[in-house]
Amino acid sequence: MKLNVSANLTYEVISSSTIILNIHATRSKSQAILSESFKIDPYIEIEELITLQGENRYIRFEVPEAATINITYNALIDTTFKKTEGKLLKDVPVMQLPPFVLPYLSPSRYCQSDKLYRFANSRFGKIKNAFEKVLTLTNWIYENVEYLSGSTNSETSAYDTVTEQAGVCRDFAHLGIALCRALSIPARYFTGYSYMLTPPDFHACFEAFLGGEWVLFDATKLAPLNGMVKIATGRDAADTAIATIFGNINCTAISANCALAADKFRPFYYNGKTPRGLTYL
Amino acid sequence: MKLNVSANLTYEVISSSTIILNIHATRSKSQAILSESFKIDPYIEIEELITLQGENRYIRFEVPEAATINITYNALIDTTFKKTEGKLLKDVPVMQLPPFVLPYLSPSRYCQSDKLYRFANSRFGKIKNAFEKVLTLTNWIYENVEYLSGSTNSETSAYDTVTEQAGVCRDFAHLGIALCRALSIPARYFTGYSYMLTPPDFHACFEAFLGGEWVLFDATKLAPLNGMVKIATGRDAADTAIATIFGNINCTAISANCALAADKFRPFYYNGKTPRGLTYL
Amino acid sequence: MKLNVSANLTYEVISSSTIILNIHATRSKSQAILSESFKIDPYIEIEELITLQGENRYIRFEVPEAATINITYNALIDTTFKKTEGKLLKDVPVMQLPPFVLPYLSPSRYCQSDKLYRFANSRFGKIKNAFEKVLTLTNWIYENVEYLSGSTNSETSAYDTVTEQAGVCRDFAHLGIALCRALSIPARYFTGYSYMLTPPDFHACFEAFLGGEWVLFDATKLAPLNGMVKIATGRDAADTAIATIFGNINCTAISANCALAADKFRPFYYNGKTPRGLTYL
Amino acid sequence: MKLNVSANLTYEVISSSTIILNIHATRSKSQAILSESFKIDPYIEIEELITLQGENRYIRFEVPEAATINITYNALIDTTFKKTEGKLLKDVPVMQLPPFVLPYLSPSRYCQSDKLYRFANSRFGKIKNAFEKVLTLTNWIYENVEYLSGSTNSETSAYDTVTEQAGVCRDFAHLGIALCRALSIPARYFTGYSYMLTPPDFHACFEAFLGGEWVLFDATKLAPLNGMVKIATGRDAADTAIATIFGNINCTAISANCALAADKFRPFYYNGKTPRGLTYL
Repeated sequence: MKLNVSANLTYEVISSSTIILNIHATRSKSQAILSESFKIDPYIEIEELITLQGENRYIRFEVPEAATINITYNALIDTTFKKTEGKLLKDVPVMQLPPFVLPYLSPSRYCQSDKLYRFANSRFGKIKNAFEKVLTLTNWIYENVEYLSGSTNSETSAYDTVTEQAGVCRDFAHLGIALCRALSIPARYFTGYSYMLTPPDFHACFEAFLGGEWVLFDATKLAPLNGMVKIATGRDAADTAIATIFGNINCTAISANCALAADKFRPFYYNGKTPRGLTYL
Repeated sequence: MKLNVSANLTYEVISSSTIILNIHATRSKSQAILSESFKIDPYIEIEELITLQGENRYIRFEVPEAATINITYNALIDTTFKKTEGKLLKDVPVMQLPPFVLPYLSPSRYCQSDKLYRFANSRFGKIKNAFEKVLTLTNWIYENVEYLSGSTNSETSAYDTVTEQAGVCRDFAHLGIALCRALSIPARYFTGYSYMLTPPDFHACFEAFLGGEWVLFDATKLAPLNGMVKIATGRDAADTAIATIFGNINCTAISANCALAADKFRPFYYNGKTPRGLTYL
Repeated sequence: MKLNVSANLTYEVISSSTIILNIHATRSKSQAILSESFKIDPYIEIEELITLQGENRYIRFEVPEAATINITYNALIDTTFKKTEGKLLKDVPVMQLPPFVLPYLSPSRYCQSDKLYRFANSRFGKIKNAFEKVLTLTNWIYENVEYLSGSTNSETSAYDTVTEQAGVCRDFAHLGIALCRALSIPARYFTGYSYMLTPPDFHACFEAFLGGEWVLFDATKLAPLNGMVKIATGRDAADTAIATIFGNINCTAISANCALAADKFRPFYYNGKTPRGLTYL
Repeated sequence: MKLNVSANLTYEVISSSTIILNIHATRSKSQAILSESFKIDPYIEIEELITLQGENRYIRFEVPEAATINITYNALIDTTFKKTEGKLLKDVPVMQLPPFVLPYLSPSRYCQSDKLYRFANSRFGKIKNAFEKVLTLTNWIYENVEYLSGSTNSETSAYDTVTEQAGVCRDFAHLGIALCRALSIPARYFTGYSYMLTPPDFHACFEAFLGGEWVLFDATKLAPLNGMVKIATGRDAADTAIATIFGNINCTAISANCALAADKFRPFYYNGKTPRGLTYL
């Protein structure tokens, strides 16, 4: 799928500051970057960081003094994904989990799976097939949590959302992750550009490790699963923040877009009786 | 320093379960494992996992049915460490942090540094030298938090401890880490065997990234800094649990020991006006 | 119903302390105290406080110096209650609530109804009859929360219990109250002696204000509703603590008992299709 | 002191709703209401509730259908207060507290004094004189918590504020109350009109029970202590909300004013070495 993505961010820098951005599409076998441009106006030298956390691409730069800076990212991306029969997306026993997947079983800042153990297991624990289990909990979130802009903030976590039942895509994803981990299913946070998201914005979903694959889930159901361009994955939003800021700065504008560049697009959601699981490789 | 360490754990396994242990001393340039034995009685086949998280050594095994199992670990370890002048242990600007250190700036399950930002900065933000800053916050924890066995549990986090002011070594370490990160100083959790700890037990401290080194701090001041044998480092206790259990199991006994095998030992603490910072490499 | 109740408490007083006890049966039209004895050994002068909070009877005394004290309370109580058809136990519109009932609509320390608004309303909001509504939420607690001694402490609140799903009678009551208030049904905490409770102990339930009556509910279902002797009602456990202690004291033993003195006893629970609501007047 | 106070509130009522307002000045020996008008436009019949909680005056009314309503309250108030030497404002031993004061020792929804026990006692416990103690903790709040509009919401409690260190008058008051109670000093929430508050608004402070008086404290230091007109006192904001709403309503405008009607005014704050404590009777 060929998609044009773009991001624009404006910062009012009050004094010398460092910014780490995570808005570049990941580069991988299943996601080719056909063209890409990144610009800071006025010009500032940047550094692209290579991290241990998979293919996330962090841009780090310093703004030496007070300034208004505009950041523009544009890219043409070609994504591929595969779909797998749900019945094949089984629980991977802890004994067989690859070591690099184990950290995604642990509780994290926004996904306190340890506190959701009884809740998750009493409600979803008896469902046999793992894909079915995650679909069911995703539907439970969709039906029980209200999507309400401005209802949460950067401190809101899955433990809040499970009870307060309101939030945005970030909160939906955190709750999905926490419930999976409480069920001993590794799960991680996924940020990306998302085609057909209204209004256009960055998006957050989650991936569960099923049948040896990282299968994508979106409890908001706001956008088709096959229209994503992956920016980053991590334990939760703490690992994958669009922007991490050190200094005295205000973000005055932020926007993201995702448009079809070519190909026909047939939106794919997990509907019907026997959906297949979608994986970005 | 040559130290004999040992651990003994007994589990009552009620039904088929998986256990991941993290009790082996790490193997590194500065920590030589002269001899080592690990035994499960009755015999169970184990797997040693190599992870992305540095040199932590996880042992994974499955207990197929109800059983009482005894785990024994013994090792003779030769540790080395270095001491660095405090004035050299400066803040590393975010721009210069190695990428692999960045995750240790983010909030984690038990170290919600995002919620401690004002507290940390208003109380410790003005101290110039970074080593001094971490020494001061370590002393603040020591003076304000009461060491009280049984006062906390596996859900207790730095956000609780900063107000409730009681806890065990784990809680002291979590608070130290959260305060460092709130001050933009990378910090990580350290578990180990600890010589002269009374009563003998596993111990937890923390390391702050200062002047390019991971410098050790122990807000409990219960044991000398130079008597540690490192088991693991991670974001917090969620990454470095002594035992992670999947299944229906009770731990019925747990103990750890650390004794001097050779060499003279002169306990080292951060005392006096110009202490040097201790680093296990 | 004639019931013999008793309580025994032992305190190790380390230094001069004040104790406020709330273990006396309330005196009311529907609860006659046929005989009663209260003793502290060694003898200490006490004061019985009359409070604004209904008929709660607080005993206040000072232990001037280190001592071991034994407190014994015995009483023969004659309780009466009435049962009302469920269909009569309707929602009282806020406009018609007596002013003294309004405080029981507000959130309190252990019953954060404000944080449970969406949860309560999405799950129970559509049930027409108010008695039916409270019965349903009581059953939901019974089915979803595990009664587990030692799983909670004096800081545990309804906000924890709704997610962590384990607790004791106090936690079950707090959650029931919080859910009622979130549904605009006044609710209060009820402590008492309870016949047929195994093992014998003080008990906690809650009352909801329905059809103009304070109707009793017990989400633990551990004891019949008609075997209670009321000690106190209040907003939550903070108002009705068995003992409130000011000073350096340890409680070394606590027990409570409730036995049938006369009359036949037919245990009454909310069973069947059209239960009637039970009210202690 | 003669003060003109006024309040204006506008509600967009979407469907049949009940509102309970608490904006009327209390009527007491020390606060004479010389004239007063209350108007809802369009006209709605109201009921004034007399409660157990002192002199708080609640107005209850029903809006039967969708409407925009404007509420106007105007009053000319004559307040008196007294000032007492700080050294007379001693701790009242729990043994001597009047029973009606005891509830103000317990933790409440927004003032979790039970969780602040160690913090309060380690920091302020050693100060001998009780007035001095409360002055010191009030200053601590003033110095450590940043007044920041919009930084908190209706769920924010003292437990958050003590660590997150930002809030509005409500949060400053809750923290003051929680710290007092943790020190065994009864404390309650105070809402009122406040002369010289910039920008004009409703205000919240707290009262501590010292030397047998309810002495006023304002940790925000935003307005003189002698320019208040009391609306209500209660355990915390849950008891004294300006407006409690049952139904589908939005508040679209809210304002409050307080102006000098006559008399000279000399602002009184707790300054200098030996301030006297101010009490509204």
